[in-house]
Amino acid sequence: MKKLAIGIDIGGINTAFGLVDEQGDLYAESVISTKKYPHFDDYPAYVRDLCDAMRALADSLSFDYELSGIGIGAPNANYHRGTIEHPVNLWVYPQGEENADESRRIFPLAADISKHFDGVRTVMTNDANAATIGEMVYGNAKGMRDFVMITLGTGLGSGFVANGQMIYGHDGFAGEFGHICVERGGRQCGCGRRGCLETYVSATGIKRTVFELMATMTAPSKLRDIAFNDLDASMISVAAEQGDPVAQEAFRFTGELLGRALADVVTVTSPEAIFLFGGLSKAGKLIFDPTQWYMEENMMFTFKNKVKLLPSGIQSKNAAILGASALIWQEQ
Amino acid sequence: MKKLAIGIDIGGINTAFGLVDEQGDLYAESVISTKKYPHFDDYPAYVRDLCDAMRALADSLSFDYELSGIGIGAPNANYHRGTIEHPVNLWVYPQGEENADESRRIFPLAADISKHFDGVRTVMTNDANAATIGEMVYGNAKGMRDFVMITLGTGLGSGFVANGQMIYGHDGFAGEFGHICVERGGRQCGCGRRGCLETYVSATGIKRTVFELMATMTAPSKLRDIAFNDLDASMISVAAEQGDPVAQEAFRFTGELLGRALADVVTVTSPEAIFLFGGLSKAGKLIFDPTQWYMEENMMFTFKNKVKLLPSGIQSKNAAILGASALIWQEQ
Repeated sequence: MKKLAIGIDIGGINTAFGLVDEQGDLYAESVISTKKYPHFDDYPAYVRDLCDAMRALADSLSFDYELSGIGIGAPNANYHRGTIEHPVNLWVYPQGEENADESRRIFPLAADISKHFDGVRTVMTNDANAATIGEMVYGNAKGMRDFVMITLGTGLGSGFVANGQMIYGHDGFAGEFGHICVERGGRQCGCGRRGCLETYVSATGIKRTVFELMATMTAPSKLRDIAFNDLDASMISVAAEQGDPVAQEAFRFTGELLGRALADVVTVTSPEAIFLFGGLSKAGKLIFDPTQWYMEENMMFTFKNKVKLLPSGIQSKNAAILGASALIWQEQ
Repeated sequence: MKKLAIGIDIGGINTAFGLVDEQGDLYAESVISTKKYPHFDDYPAYVRDLCDAMRALADSLSFDYELSGIGIGAPNANYHRGTIEHPVNLWVYPQGEENADESRRIFPLAADISKHFDGVRTVMTNDANAATIGEMVYGNAKGMRDFVMITLGTGLGSGFVANGQMIYGHDGFAGEFGHICVERGGRQCGCGRRGCLETYVSATGIKRTVFELMATMTAPSKLRDIAFNDLDASMISVAAEQGDPVAQEAFRFTGELLGRALADVVTVTSPEAIFLFGGLSKAGKLIFDPTQWYMEENMMFTFKNKVKLLPSGIQSKNAAILGASALIWQEQ
């Protein structure tokens, strides 16, 4: 009988899920709102509604299959415990709420979902790690034992694979490469510190760079007509392709910081390849060329001209669902 | 029958080796000169003389045993291929030598030694990785699946263990954490670049720091009476313990740079513990206290107060031999 896994991608706004086979083919998908359940007390209702929607999707297929497991990609996910721990955007206590007890904000989502599905194996990790396993199972990292995945979205996520295994770390939270410090006392980061890589290298980071450059450069730029809150990374890509000097310099600078950081981390795990995934990576040469150049320029001789910088092979709108489902096939 | 492994520690000056059992007890040890064989052409004689000396040592034991394997810790060692590749201090072409062909400077030492011992399993990695495996097999990392070893000698070596396995990387050269860049355009490094961590955090690094501080500080210091070439790290430790302000500031600064770098690398592999090993780590609180403080001060909240900073459990003059022999027990 055909085997399928459910992949779930939990974001702050929506939760998307789908049924996927071992080849990465998606048979059905659906979505529920995450932000409809903002409060700590809403968690049980969220789990119930999500499971009901998943059950409906699972029952909608017209052929018989075996459900092999459920894989979940979620922010602040602890792989070892199957929990979401102190998420910043999910099931929070509203500000000023009395008796808010942060220690209770550990949500055993993997176990809670598994219960609704006759105890089927349910595995959870953060979204970047899920994408990494998706790359290994379905994408361009097939057969690679040592590689790095960099996901460029609103922030910068990462996943490290060594000896053919995902590095989850002692506490299940490894792979927070977006939070290495690249500039002492630099830009404020959502994590509460300053100068983290993702404040420079991400969709938000390049936008901040554009605004800094509009102050330091005098070159004309059509981006000067756009307010901070109206600008997004794809507008910067389009401007750079049209020769806008501010947008082009923003990409060069972004690639410089990413390339330098990659040259450093290569010394630790010595990967065969580094994959760039997500919105900003779709800018192609604009981001790949400077990243590659600065990575090699700063690389220790031992690793020079050895490490491939490649686009992800699972770039699609369903990549997050695929990645989550791959958790099941990888661990069979 | 008792099982023993030979551990070999190859340094630029001497090659030490010994017979070790699975508990880390050393039964016999000996040493030959490495620097007696400086030239590219001397390599075959080095292998022959080393193997003769090892054979003599192996035959000297008064009881019967089984030789389980030979483990080697050496600079520029490629774990996957069992080769020493382009070493900076071993078997070099003298300057100006004609027809020097760097591509020939790959020495298949593991295979060459194995041949002299009836094909016994022979495994080689760099000295820091060997120490890391020694910590895992005999030392304080027993039973840990995720940890980092930092070896503070003339330079800074490192070994990373994730999922219970050494990270050798795609090319066998992973774990060069001493060569992440901590200061753009900073101190010149032996690797040809600038600002590498080991130019600050190592026996040589702290000495360079002392000389920088003697220029920037006005405080009196007995170190001001010692020439650069006469000063070593243990003299700086003694001065710091006696309250010398320059020496104390040098340790604080060294711990600051190491602590920051560790806070960054924790985001990648999320280890249970970080072990400090080697000469400088023997300064105890002088190096541990500032390292710990700056590591926590710069740590992302996810990892705060979770990672133990510990002294190595294999601190002895035979640690390098033990580490090399542990390669055999770890891979049985």
